[in-house]
Amino acid sequence: MAFKASILTLYPDMFPGPLGHSLSGRALNQGLWSFETCQIRDYATDKHRSVDDTPAGGGAGMVLRADILAKAIESIAATEDPRPRILMSPRGRPFTQRRAHELAESPGAIIVCGRFEGVDQRVIDARDLEEISVGDYILSGGEAAALTMLDAVIRLIPGVMGNVASAETESFETGLLEHPHFTRPSVFEGMPIPEVLTSGNHKLIHEWRLSEAERLTRERRPDLWHAYVEDDDDVD
Amino acid sequence: MAFKASILTLYPDMFPGPLGHSLSGRALNQGLWSFETCQIRDYATDKHRSVDDTPAGGGAGMVLRADILAKAIESIAATEDPRPRILMSPRGRPFTQRRAHELAESPGAIIVCGRFEGVDQRVIDARDLEEISVGDYILSGGEAAALTMLDAVIRLIPGVMGNVASAETESFETGLLEHPHFTRPSVFEGMPIPEVLTSGNHKLIHEWRLSEAERLTRERRPDLWHAYVEDDDDVD
Repeated sequence: MAFKASILTLYPDMFPGPLGHSLSGRALNQGLWSFETCQIRDYATDKHRSVDDTPAGGGAGMVLRADILAKAIESIAATEDPRPRILMSPRGRPFTQRRAHELAESPGAIIVCGRFEGVDQRVIDARDLEEISVGDYILSGGEAAALTMLDAVIRLIPGVMGNVASAETESFETGLLEHPHFTRPSVFEGMPIPEVLTSGNHKLIHEWRLSEAERLTRERRPDLWHAYVEDDDDVD
Repeated sequence: MAFKASILTLYPDMFPGPLGHSLSGRALNQGLWSFETCQIRDYATDKHRSVDDTPAGGGAGMVLRADILAKAIESIAATEDPRPRILMSPRGRPFTQRRAHELAESPGAIIVCGRFEGVDQRVIDARDLEEISVGDYILSGGEAAALTMLDAVIRLIPGVMGNVASAETESFETGLLEHPHFTRPSVFEGMPIPEVLTSGNHKLIHEWRLSEAERLTRERRPDLWHAYVEDDDDVD
């Protein structure tokens, strides 16, 4: 069964958006994944079709109502639907390459795109929504986050990428940031390609790339570097 | 001068994409921000319009050529253009809410969307590109990352959001994840809104929200929690 994303949103026109182009667009046309959207507003109960209300206890912003979102979820996914139910939320656990691999091997995902100040906690609890964050910043809604998460997942769905080796040496797959790349022309604005890369000595090339990847990770991401070094210690 | 994004990409049709809707779409129509795209392929020099070549030293994937990208950048931004030059890249420094605020106060950004295995390091160095990552996962290209980063920036541009107070109490602005939200109905599937929130006692409501925000941050994001506690120590 191909990966199917069911997306609950107030802006269904945002989908497939960028996912309709390039690698994911071709995969969509080939039926390697599919999506449907659910307009949450269709489950509003008043004549203004409102889906949010003021926060209990006061404060700024509006909160997406539990009852309306619950009905929208039921409309798109049966109780026994095996797909993970995800709420895009800055309060969620950080999305990782590991979670991308897991989702790519699953039958799909039910994805709720939050808007306003937040979503009523009771529907998060009652429907067991997994809160996922794509990064430590605030978006105007969950839609951009859902598009980003799906982009990372879709390229890992079997059959989507031609060159699997390319995926495996990338940043995060090894625990290190990727080494620098060079290609023709051999001299650009007076700068040559590092000599080792044109030496033809594969052992030296491998060593240079690993040492550059380690240097970059140490400089830019001490958090990843510490995790990498600790993993290494475990192996010894 | 309104914020202007100049985006270098092989997929200009991906823009404005989701940014043409909702909050950012209205702001675009109001002229609070603008964008232009530059098709990198227009600066190819061969009859196949190729922009990439095989990596020096061997390996999987293709590398975006320094000379072609440099010409594309020159076409869209003069040397004296004061806007930051950003390369969306998983090797970059993590994008944060603080960087979103800085960019929202700047005249805009020149944004290069990487594709393939990577970008020739020499153009990154020669054009002083700031590598920014939106998260620890691999995307099919920089486009989804650029859309996500711009979404976070645009909502912070003066005049875009109606309610500034709403922005200020959100996750990451305080160093904590946001507390849970509740709204009507007062009972959902047998679950009432927590009593304190309907008490009308603002001091108790504030304390409850802070304690919930601290609990969530401790449970879900030990990294943020440690930074929060250490900041607190500095103040004492």
